[in-house]
Amino acid sequence: MTAPHPRLSINQATIKHADLATALQVTADAGVGAIGLWREPVQKVGLATAARMLTDSGLRFTTHCRGGFFTMPEGPDRRASIDDNRVAIEETAALAAAGAAGSTAVLVLVAGGLPAGSRDLTGARERVRDAIGELASDAAAAGVTLAIEPLHPMYASDRCVVSTLGQALDIAEDFDPTTVGVTVDAFHIWWDPDVLAHVERAGREGRLATYQVCDWKTPLAADVLLSRHYPGDGVIDLRALTHAVIATGYDRDIEVEIFNEDIWATEPEDAVARTADTFGRTVASYLAT
Amino acid sequence: MTAPHPRLSINQATIKHADLATALQVTADAGVGAIGLWREPVQKVGLATAARMLTDSGLRFTTHCRGGFFTMPEGPDRRASIDDNRVAIEETAALAAAGAAGSTAVLVLVAGGLPAGSRDLTGARERVRDAIGELASDAAAAGVTLAIEPLHPMYASDRCVVSTLGQALDIAEDFDPTTVGVTVDAFHIWWDPDVLAHVERAGREGRLATYQVCDWKTPLAADVLLSRHYPGDGVIDLRALTHAVIATGYDRDIEVEIFNEDIWATEPEDAVARTADTFGRTVASYLAT
Repeated sequence: MTAPHPRLSINQATIKHADLATALQVTADAGVGAIGLWREPVQKVGLATAARMLTDSGLRFTTHCRGGFFTMPEGPDRRASIDDNRVAIEETAALAAAGAAGSTAVLVLVAGGLPAGSRDLTGARERVRDAIGELASDAAAAGVTLAIEPLHPMYASDRCVVSTLGQALDIAEDFDPTTVGVTVDAFHIWWDPDVLAHVERAGREGRLATYQVCDWKTPLAADVLLSRHYPGDGVIDLRALTHAVIATGYDRDIEVEIFNEDIWATEPEDAVARTADTFGRTVASYLAT
Repeated sequence: MTAPHPRLSINQATIKHADLATALQVTADAGVGAIGLWREPVQKVGLATAARMLTDSGLRFTTHCRGGFFTMPEGPDRRASIDDNRVAIEETAALAAAGAAGSTAVLVLVAGGLPAGSRDLTGARERVRDAIGELASDAAAAGVTLAIEPLHPMYASDRCVVSTLGQALDIAEDFDPTTVGVTVDAFHIWWDPDVLAHVERAGREGRLATYQVCDWKTPLAADVLLSRHYPGDGVIDLRALTHAVIATGYDRDIEVEIFNEDIWATEPEDAVARTADTFGRTVASYLAT
């Protein structure tokens, strides 16, 4: 077993059933240098405690997952979502400050799907832009980058109306790149005929806030949310995509984020070891070439 | 029960378990004017017999489903696929000639997925263009339009490497528009931020060979191939899409094509009646406005 690649970050969702203490411990024990956290386990212990635990772990903090879900029309639900995103921005800033040197204050944004009963995809997409407009000044004040994540088009109706990297960049364009960037997650965008050009554009425009990997294979899981696999176990051309990301000058950590019932059923130590191993044999091997 | 809209065509897949005789009978009995056929039930009775049955039904013929599946590298499998597509072209011409006045000689092409073990999506996409290049002269000689169908990106790895209407149009661009066009199927492209612009381009370039509808809703069926629904039962903005299609000058029939185990389990008469009803309340109501 070789040491994990120094740029590997474990996204906490990969070991979903581990609480925060376990996730930090297992990641650090494996010799991994960084972690991306999720809001629920952080809130379960409280932000101040979570920040102290993160500091004690010695790990870098890479992203906070996740804000967004603001496609609904004006009203109390939308106000509650905007307010909650402000909390997420504060959490992100606190955790980035608590992480080891090299941590990044990145809040991943998943836009949300069509409001119930609506077919107005264009309107929902406009409301994403509006919401980010409301949050940009808070993000700037906190030193946090909002990283718009395009999700695969199979989630367009119920989870995320932002479906391509090009579309995410078009929304981001209205804002300062240190405040609003994009999430490049291989699973969501690998199929796009224009993906390499979009990655190049994201780099050129200074918006590539985080690069996340896993793999795609078929048949898809019955619940398509849980159909992500270890890097190398599927068909994504991670070599071409990683080369394109690195060619932009991206020098941050790279997260592995996997939602998969079978992987969640394994011990978190085993999932982290397998993640480090598969990352080493795929993505890491393309970083130096 | 009002009469079915005169531009409705039943795609045979909607009543998959009906044999050709039943499909033609049920469609004609319902007062529907047109049908799109599939190769397997046609081949089961033989092309000459199928053509006579179609003539006797009095129905227009709208599309033949389907050719394609030619993403593999050069070799016997690729040769077999190209040869089989030549047969499909001949079938399409014969059926279009046998159908009632207003029939259209359109062969729907589904490209095929990544070859086993391959991650080279770009190469597979290039081989689609090459295959169409080989088939174009046969199609032109037979008076058949090859209608490249972009499939939803969730099928990109295992079924169709052509994932957007823009990509289909880029491939078609190399060829005469009467020979190579595109299939606009609402289910596959509704999520695309650029879909209306692509439809406009398809019309402007004279390539909108066939318009097919059904609906999208979540959760997706466990087998995502079978997750299509009656028009109006989901979230697709069929009003905007139909308006865009009609604005191009599209004056052909419109197919309803549904793959859905529950719908297949109903009597074909009931499925056709429900199709006519839902088409009347959705797509048809947008044709006059």
